Amino acid sequence: MTKRKVSDAVIRRLPKYYRYLDELHENGITRISSHQLADEMGFTASQIRQDLNCFGGFGQQGYGYGVEKLRSEISAILGLQDMRGAILIGAGNLGRALLGNFDFESCGFRMLAAFDVASEVVGKKVNGVDVLALDSLDEFIKAHSAELAVLTMPGDETREIAKRLEALGVKGVWNFTSRELRADETNMCVETVHFTESLMALCYKVNEEGKA
Amino acid sequence: MTKRKVSDAVIRRLPKYYRYLDELHENGITRISSHQLADEMGFTASQIRQDLNCFGGFGQQGYGYGVEKLRSEISAILGLQDMRGAILIGAGNLGRALLGNFDFESCGFRMLAAFDVASEVVGKKVNGVDVLALDSLDEFIKAHSAELAVLTMPGDETREIAKRLEALGVKGVWNFTSRELRADETNMCVETVHFTESLMALCYKVNEEGKA
Repeated sequence: MTKRKVSDAVIRRLPKYYRYLDELHENGITRISSHQLADEMGFTASQIRQDLNCFGGFGQQGYGYGVEKLRSEISAILGLQDMRGAILIGAGNLGRALLGNFDFESCGFRMLAAFDVASEVVGKKVNGVDVLALDSLDEFIKAHSAELAVLTMPGDETREIAKRLEALGVKGVWNFTSRELRADETNMCVETVHFTESLMALCYKVNEEGKA
Repeated sequence: MTKRKVSDAVIRRLPKYYRYLDELHENGITRISSHQLADEMGFTASQIRQDLNCFGGFGQQGYGYGVEKLRSEISAILGLQDMRGAILIGAGNLGRALLGNFDFESCGFRMLAAFDVASEVVGKKVNGVDVLALDSLDEFIKAHSAELAVLTMPGDETREIAKRLEALGVKGVWNFTSRELRADETNMCVETVHFTESLMALCYKVNEEGKA
């Protein structure tokens, strides 16, 4: 596997490749040409070849890509098999929806515990995951080496909690709160899920559609 | 308001401006320079001036931007005051989390009803919103003219439901399912919330961090 700096755009396409190859694999398809892959995914064949060349390429002239091989190479590049420890902070509706339905393991993380301050949820289990008191966060992370924190608590606590997590050695934050974490506020890797911005952008498009 | 074709990147930044200006407004701040706005938002001042010029600009030399005026102009551009009708399909955990916590009205939509097939939820209310049988979808949309559909049902139904919604005149889809809706599959405006791709990208970054 060739190691070099990969652009954010490529990093964002890799999960799409992975997901699609995983589907092909489940449907028993063993190989695919870059043209077929391109048609199905809505990219160009040359874009796909270029993306995969970032990692040393995996295709063979006249054969295309071996689905299972490419799928597991991309999985290795993304680090999906490493099963790093994760915790979730804020076991409200959204937190519980993620704990109950989201397949963290398919994305490379094992959910170790959830944390909340509300006495109604602390001490309960959601989909087998214990909800612990937020007071015990520091102790827990030190003992279990969580590398990812999923933030689903209210937005006004985001910055303070992030500082605490960073000091505890957490490396990544999956931020669902209404508060952004900017690069100058944290050294952790941050992925933000922008519900509001996504829906406002859609509102604009629907609005424009109405004028057209 | 100058009308012209606006790039997707600008459309994505507008909700960020709106959110930040809304905060300033709530804190009683009445004006801000493009430099201050830039510092706070992590953009450059010239980027901000350029973005806002797309819509005719609103700043005054030596004065900056009037917070309330700029906020309401952006709100009007995004169409946030129009309160278009919306429905949600799939009242599982994620659907209920959105119904219970997400402020659709601040994004320009009024949630009219939710739909599901499970007898445990049909007939109930979530945060004041009725959960109706999916069978009654066509009739409901015809009677209430919903323009937005929020999709939180299982992914294998995405394409079929989208076809049905498009035929009923729905204009926008906020897609939380695991299935994409590509431009060649629908004429509706689509915004996809990519949970899996977002977390896989974060997995990659955390992984790289570990190697560094």
